[in-house]
Amino acid sequence: MVIKMKENKYDNELFFKKYGEMERSKKGLAGSGEWHELQKLMPDFHGKTVLDLGCGYGWHCKYAAENGARHVTGTDISGKMLQVAVRRNGGDRIEYRTAAMEDLTFPEETFDVILSSLAFHYVKDFEPLVKNICMWLKTGGDFVFSVEHPVFTSSGPQDWYYDGDGNILHFPVDNYYYEGARDAVFLGEHVIKYHRTLTTYLNTLLENGFELLHVVEPKPPENMMDIPGMKDEMRRPMMLLVAARKKQP
Amino acid sequence: MVIKMKENKYDNELFFKKYGEMERSKKGLAGSGEWHELQKLMPDFHGKTVLDLGCGYGWHCKYAAENGARHVTGTDISGKMLQVAVRRNGGDRIEYRTAAMEDLTFPEETFDVILSSLAFHYVKDFEPLVKNICMWLKTGGDFVFSVEHPVFTSSGPQDWYYDGDGNILHFPVDNYYYEGARDAVFLGEHVIKYHRTLTTYLNTLLENGFELLHVVEPKPPENMMDIPGMKDEMRRPMMLLVAARKKQP
Repeated sequence: MVIKMKENKYDNELFFKKYGEMERSKKGLAGSGEWHELQKLMPDFHGKTVLDLGCGYGWHCKYAAENGARHVTGTDISGKMLQVAVRRNGGDRIEYRTAAMEDLTFPEETFDVILSSLAFHYVKDFEPLVKNICMWLKTGGDFVFSVEHPVFTSSGPQDWYYDGDGNILHFPVDNYYYEGARDAVFLGEHVIKYHRTLTTYLNTLLENGFELLHVVEPKPPENMMDIPGMKDEMRRPMMLLVAARKKQP
Repeated sequence: MVIKMKENKYDNELFFKKYGEMERSKKGLAGSGEWHELQKLMPDFHGKTVLDLGCGYGWHCKYAAENGARHVTGTDISGKMLQVAVRRNGGDRIEYRTAAMEDLTFPEETFDVILSSLAFHYVKDFEPLVKNICMWLKTGGDFVFSVEHPVFTSSGPQDWYYDGDGNILHFPVDNYYYEGARDAVFLGEHVIKYHRTLTTYLNTLLENGFELLHVVEPKPPENMMDIPGMKDEMRRPMMLLVAARKKQP
């Protein structure tokens, strides 16, 4: 397996098309199974400067702007994603910038709020990024993010384990403590994702200037239980949501 | 399945005998795979009053006393466990008390440190206990505990999934969001354990007056990798260690 650094799968034509057909792509936040929980972790945006790392279509940028943010910077490695973001979720106070989040530079204490939705599992090295985020945030600033859950990323394929008749038996966990690249299948395509333990996600924050405010594994929402396969989402955690605050140094 | 409240499995003769044959029972802390990580989370004990909930043989009580604690209270539901504790880990400044931790009462702000090692997964209701622990602790006091990891407790039997030849394929996760009693097999005996999500373990602390200091899933120690089966412990998390501090109200 050849591991390409800073993979930009979303600029792949077929993958981008398939992504566009997902509920969360068509409906935005309302089509995202975790939004009902992530929304509760969102800080007050009034008058705030906001950075969204790996913003994709820009739904969270738009949300921040609509909820009073003074200025929002959305960044993504995929120019194709940002073309959609500008078209569907643009605005006077929203600026989109094409860049890998690992390459970004900002002055110290630039932002009041830093967000990231389901993007950090594409990043190879978490700690340097967390150090940057802490530096870019003002003291007391909020850092809220979602990632794929370590249970979901550990074994690699991200699929259930089935019996001979195709019925789900359980979800497999394997190689949990071996962090690093996984050849995951997402939308029928192979994508490199990086598995990290829960210890790494949380302790990296605790050891780099953050206080944890909330740690949430979102359950599927009641009003989506009719969607095929959604009841099975009660059987294993798929996402991890974290709200943290930059402490006094 | 009949669920008996406050199960006292350790007073069962056969189970107690099998427990006594485990490495951790014979060797104490040095025989516990997680001690090298748990020790790092231990606070300074000098001059402190300490409570250990579900203290078992009393190894952590002894450790606290040997490291300067002024007074240590160890509690356990099993009188048989405490007979061993008195004999092997007794001391002038250590008091053992037979009680289910759910039934304990202490005045507000009694302790500087509250510990618990691998006992909370026998407790049905976590939040009332956390509220009590917060009340019993002085402001700024330390709360350090280990539990079986939610990955380990979710499906129930706590065993690997094998192929037809008896080789380990992976560890199964199932029914993760359905918290409650599990019919687990431990030392060849059926024991009721309570599965809780990571969200419940951590957010219950965050919402009841605690700041999280460390969250650690301990890897097997390098010097135990020769023990049969220990390398497989790299394939899934079995324990969760948490260090927290009681915040200013």
